[in-house]
Amino acid sequence: MKKAFKLIKKDKQTDARLGVLKTVHGLIKTPTFVPVGSQATVKGLTSSDLDEIGIDIFFVNTYLLYLRPGEEIIEKLGGIHRFANWPKPIISDSGGFQVFSLAKKENKVKIDYQGVTFTSHLDGSKHYFTPEKSIQIQQKLKTDIMVAFDQCPDYPSSYHQAWLANQRTHRWAKESLKTAQKNKDQLIFGVIQGSTFKDLREESAGFINDLPFDGLAIGGVAVGEDKKEMRQVLDWVTPILKNDKKYNYRPLHLLGVGEIDDIFAAVEKGIDMMDCVMPTRLGRMGYILTREGKDFKIDITKNEFSQDKSALDSQCHCYVCSNYSKAYLHHLFKAHELLAYRLATYHNLCFISNLFDKIKEAISKNKFIALKEEWLKKER
Amino acid sequence: MKKAFKLIKKDKQTDARLGVLKTVHGLIKTPTFVPVGSQATVKGLTSSDLDEIGIDIFFVNTYLLYLRPGEEIIEKLGGIHRFANWPKPIISDSGGFQVFSLAKKENKVKIDYQGVTFTSHLDGSKHYFTPEKSIQIQQKLKTDIMVAFDQCPDYPSSYHQAWLANQRTHRWAKESLKTAQKNKDQLIFGVIQGSTFKDLREESAGFINDLPFDGLAIGGVAVGEDKKEMRQVLDWVTPILKNDKKYNYRPLHLLGVGEIDDIFAAVEKGIDMMDCVMPTRLGRMGYILTREGKDFKIDITKNEFSQDKSALDSQCHCYVCSNYSKAYLHHLFKAHELLAYRLATYHNLCFISNLFDKIKEAISKNKFIALKEEWLKKER
Repeated sequence: MKKAFKLIKKDKQTDARLGVLKTVHGLIKTPTFVPVGSQATVKGLTSSDLDEIGIDIFFVNTYLLYLRPGEEIIEKLGGIHRFANWPKPIISDSGGFQVFSLAKKENKVKIDYQGVTFTSHLDGSKHYFTPEKSIQIQQKLKTDIMVAFDQCPDYPSSYHQAWLANQRTHRWAKESLKTAQKNKDQLIFGVIQGSTFKDLREESAGFINDLPFDGLAIGGVAVGEDKKEMRQVLDWVTPILKNDKKYNYRPLHLLGVGEIDDIFAAVEKGIDMMDCVMPTRLGRMGYILTREGKDFKIDITKNEFSQDKSALDSQCHCYVCSNYSKAYLHHLFKAHELLAYRLATYHNLCFISNLFDKIKEAISKNKFIALKEEWLKKER
Repeated sequence: MKKAFKLIKKDKQTDARLGVLKTVHGLIKTPTFVPVGSQATVKGLTSSDLDEIGIDIFFVNTYLLYLRPGEEIIEKLGGIHRFANWPKPIISDSGGFQVFSLAKKENKVKIDYQGVTFTSHLDGSKHYFTPEKSIQIQQKLKTDIMVAFDQCPDYPSSYHQAWLANQRTHRWAKESLKTAQKNKDQLIFGVIQGSTFKDLREESAGFINDLPFDGLAIGGVAVGEDKKEMRQVLDWVTPILKNDKKYNYRPLHLLGVGEIDDIFAAVEKGIDMMDCVMPTRLGRMGYILTREGKDFKIDITKNEFSQDKSALDSQCHCYVCSNYSKAYLHHLFKAHELLAYRLATYHNLCFISNLFDKIKEAISKNKFIALKEEWLKKER
């Protein structure tokens, strides 16, 4: 366990906290948002864009990169940072989640106690992932943060299925750690599962918390459950983690969560990092994040924007908002122009990045609750 | 006639020349390449990108912008420059070429002596373009350079068809000029047609040359004829233009041409401006312009590039070549990632822009032929 995380400040009213996570590719100031760049690219954006936006770290997908171009090629090319021209931190998932989502669509996933046999969604070829294999791939990618191989149970799950997934996740956590233990330059995060069952979540939190991971992640959320259930998971898990002194030098990541209200709920519970496809995927669909829209978004393809000279968000100062109008974005989307997806993605990530800046500032001034109320009261 | 063009220098060995074209949105140093941004966007690129690349002017499509978003909307939004956030010059075509290509696919184009009835390729609605209408649309767009409404005959054309297209083109040229005559801020170029018939080309060159256009354009090339035929058109037309003193204060644009060998052939004959979808369209298809490839291009999707650490072009210093490898571009194309099209487009335009810089430098030193030989000998 590397104690790479340093707690800087705790909010006085909530569990929100400021911290710094140290990696060989630089510092990550938390709480932070981690955009998803599954195939070693945040869709449509260059590394200079991400830097301009203020992104500190992005998430790559072990399953996808293993299938294409292959971790061996990325290793030969000098690792994921050189490959993607991104000198700052990168986190890779374990591949587990995608095995159980993408590959499962092929209906050919077989789980045993040692690992998972699956069929590539690209070419139908057969593959076998074990914790050892997952970590070895992530080692070849040379990401800064690896994630232990886990089983994310379906939603909804029967108690028995969720219990079984816990058993495997815990065994695989230890095996992942074992393979990772000689790593000097890579951190490894363990994943807490347990579906929507209180005792299984508590069991998993306790078990994973006791292992010498460099950071912890809460998985199996944002898989179809409603917001209330998701927040309940945080209520069950975080008290157990908080009760341990390791809590102060270990970052806590929430996997796959990123809607605005969820961001506030998660940070309030002590979440330090969270990733989500929401801002980028919504952007490509024409949904623009803005404080002026219902639930913080507008559908720019709607006719009402065809002659709107104003910026996407009146308070945003990003490149897109400084240079282009809603009417132009509307036109680009209507005309199916490539630039549409790029500009919307850029702005949406800026919007989220700016929000996290505001959150950090609020925590530093013990005003997190005030910020949350300012944002959520009006809009919902 | 505005005499907006100033001849700076003539090459001693050829008709290649350096010039400056003045518009209300700034100067254009010629010879120059004009990328195509049909729908008010050069596909995938921002105006900052174009500026970085060194682009002075781009080409928008009157037919497409008339159909979507509509010239009225662009006018209300302050004109095409504000709409597309591009403070430098913009040229619009007359819409004629697209009426005869895009709309024709619907098989519903009817030409009469006054204009053209056509069916929108977007929604099947009926429209009628006359020279007056075309210029009025371009006036509302507020482009810096308008193009007279013309009829581009099919390739191949019968002599009679080409003759008829000439008659219309010439009548429409005068009508276009009439509608444009009060324009202070917009230049207008006349178009020479005549298909592949020597006497019709000469007739058209003479007729259009005699009208008080601010610039001339050669149309009806790169429509299916072979390179030899295309160059023959230049051989027929340019002597007639050169024989007139207006030649020295009127720029000459070649419509739709832009392959590397054609660029040299055209500049050698005195062409000052040329537009082509080639660098941008090829880029989106995975063809990367580079001096190291056969015919100046490589297909980056080929397996041989999957582990190639080198830059797209060893002599190019653009953002893409300075930051990304062939292997990464290969991966992006294979993975159908948005960034692929953007980076390839960016580099390809840089490659062409750099070539025109070299051409300008060579003309200034009377070394145009040497440059042409250096480029074309080795590669073809």
